[in-house]
Amino acid sequence: MTDPLLPTVRLKPKANARAVRRGFPWVFANEMVVDRRTGALPPGSVALLEDAERTPMGLVAVNPTSKIMCRMLDPVGTEAPDQAWFAARIGHALSLRERLFDTPFYRLIHAEADGLPGVIIDRFGDLAVVQPNAAWADVYLDAMVAALVEVTGVTTVLKNAGGRGRMLEGLDALDAVLVGTAPEAALPVEMNDAIYMADVTGGQKTGLFYDQRPNHAFAARLAKDARVLDVFSHVGGFALAALAGGAQSALAVDGSAPALALATEAADRMGASDRFTTRQGDAFDAMMGLAQEDALFDLVICDPPAFAPSKPALEKGLRAYERVARLSAGLVQDGGYLVLCSCSHAADLTVFTGACLRGIGRAGRHAQLVHTGFAGPDHPLMPQLAESGYLKALFFRL
Amino acid sequence: MTDPLLPTVRLKPKANARAVRRGFPWVFANEMVVDRRTGALPPGSVALLEDAERTPMGLVAVNPTSKIMCRMLDPVGTEAPDQAWFAARIGHALSLRERLFDTPFYRLIHAEADGLPGVIIDRFGDLAVVQPNAAWADVYLDAMVAALVEVTGVTTVLKNAGGRGRMLEGLDALDAVLVGTAPEAALPVEMNDAIYMADVTGGQKTGLFYDQRPNHAFAARLAKDARVLDVFSHVGGFALAALAGGAQSALAVDGSAPALALATEAADRMGASDRFTTRQGDAFDAMMGLAQEDALFDLVICDPPAFAPSKPALEKGLRAYERVARLSAGLVQDGGYLVLCSCSHAADLTVFTGACLRGIGRAGRHAQLVHTGFAGPDHPLMPQLAESGYLKALFFRL
Repeated sequence: MTDPLLPTVRLKPKANARAVRRGFPWVFANEMVVDRRTGALPPGSVALLEDAERTPMGLVAVNPTSKIMCRMLDPVGTEAPDQAWFAARIGHALSLRERLFDTPFYRLIHAEADGLPGVIIDRFGDLAVVQPNAAWADVYLDAMVAALVEVTGVTTVLKNAGGRGRMLEGLDALDAVLVGTAPEAALPVEMNDAIYMADVTGGQKTGLFYDQRPNHAFAARLAKDARVLDVFSHVGGFALAALAGGAQSALAVDGSAPALALATEAADRMGASDRFTTRQGDAFDAMMGLAQEDALFDLVICDPPAFAPSKPALEKGLRAYERVARLSAGLVQDGGYLVLCSCSHAADLTVFTGACLRGIGRAGRHAQLVHTGFAGPDHPLMPQLAESGYLKALFFRL
Repeated sequence: MTDPLLPTVRLKPKANARAVRRGFPWVFANEMVVDRRTGALPPGSVALLEDAERTPMGLVAVNPTSKIMCRMLDPVGTEAPDQAWFAARIGHALSLRERLFDTPFYRLIHAEADGLPGVIIDRFGDLAVVQPNAAWADVYLDAMVAALVEVTGVTTVLKNAGGRGRMLEGLDALDAVLVGTAPEAALPVEMNDAIYMADVTGGQKTGLFYDQRPNHAFAARLAKDARVLDVFSHVGGFALAALAGGAQSALAVDGSAPALALATEAADRMGASDRFTTRQGDAFDAMMGLAQEDALFDLVICDPPAFAPSKPALEKGLRAYERVARLSAGLVQDGGYLVLCSCSHAADLTVFTGACLRGIGRAGRHAQLVHTGFAGPDHPLMPQLAESGYLKALFFRL
């Protein structure tokens, strides 16, 4: 039964109603009829969407202050989300993760693709970190968190409000403890036979990224007896996986001292501290320094931050990726392996591969492409949002 | 020292010498100066390539009867390949496979990407199957096979002359036993904890394809307790992996009775025959039949033959992929998984994904894309040959 109290919002005649019906999850502000009533809806209101002919199209979250004005919550929904609604979505997402992973460490909710637009939930055993990156998720946070606890049994829930999306939605950046007590120390997380230390309170941006898990695993297969260099290492993602895979040595380079400290702590726990070293500082400087020392590695991984987060930044970003490829290729032993990653939405696989090949070529090297990896399966994609395939990892042999 | 007996061939001024210098491995007939002497070279001759200004560009294999007139063998080579030259290439390729795999069952040489243009070598333990799909490989077959035995220690080498490439090169289709004795029965091959039966003499096209190995492995992760349908199953690729992954049942559909017989033999060896059934016949008919029986599966895999092997066949091929997606989506339980594969060169990832989504949509279903897989890492790519990334496997949740 349709909730009579829910407001109705409407598409303009020129809007692409067909795309929405086929599953495109957003309606942009310029496709909406924004009369005084719709414009006055508080950000995060839930409403019933109609097309220009007033045919119902489903339940949406509305944010009149955001470029993405409507996010589809439920094409057949007629009532505001409650705990049961959230529990069904979270349960559906959980069943995929439980099929894929033996231990409860994964991204549990990956936003639109898991039916909760703008919401990210990462699970670390009995603890979950929620990123409500859209206004509606802040409004319905209590019901969502209650469902999360009900479905998964987690005992601690933290809110991380540091997501870039929150700014675009006009939301605050205040982290909070929603359930239980925040841990005082970083949590050990086992993945790919390695141990990682995750600082889930996120103060230093030293939490853990699950998205690279299959790429870490593939790198570990190449790491036996290898001298490994992990540039932009963060908390040791590739370096620790390589050590677990039998690397002779691993050097982690990162700008963040706290991140490297967590990597070192993890290597200690793995009993691998004698094979692990770190170098704190600018990654480009570090690579040039290693080249001057004539250092060579059997496996080099570069997983830089998003150099091309948006289309205007694409050209500059591609030059940065090319430079990373050129500098890192020079540090790879003949017959060795080079892994180049991009987490830029704007640089698709083809243009990113092109930039990497130009850089490798400018280093005077030739490359074979052994493997192409994406984000792990706990980061499903909504096929209608092509850009959601942000993470690429190219495994070259030189 | 340059072999004075080697002929020289030359690029036309309009040819793209830069692409060749950057690693593009082919020169087409219309880019070559074909005078009487070059036109008279026996197919498979090795020659020295020069650009239009007579600058040396490397060692090439020449086939004046083929559209691909030159294949780059060695940009810095000056002498015809001998056993040592082949041994270096095969050894380099072997070191990648030995890093990646615990047992000697893999594609050892994947043509251009492994430095032996047009040559495929699959290894099954002590046995290797060579496909010399370019004329030069037939000419130098003895040295290549001697190197193969020297480097890998295989005791049996078979020649499979059934490759489509051999026709384009004007070569015969005569299989042969080059070293040792051909096995009388199909060989058991272990992959992803499953057993496959490989009929390597290839009489029935029932050999084994290694390229789907990582995709089989991913499907196995989804298979626990699942009812599995494997359409275009061949010798049981996905079905047997799913059984190894704990599937409740697996039904394999294929047009080839001999292929299904090998799948059944493999299931017997795995002790899984009580969970395995087959249905021989047209895959489309079989899917429509299952729909009429209201059959539902938790995991459906469709790995059809190349419907779009070439650009002219693309549109028709995409319609066939859409039809496969539509029919198979209807057989998937709500919340279940659908794996759609393409081994068509002409259908790239974007257009293939589009065809799959249209088919799924026409079946009235919505899909989440959980994973995208390509051919395994024993099928490396030459980045300059974009089309070599032929195999795509899309893992949807419906």
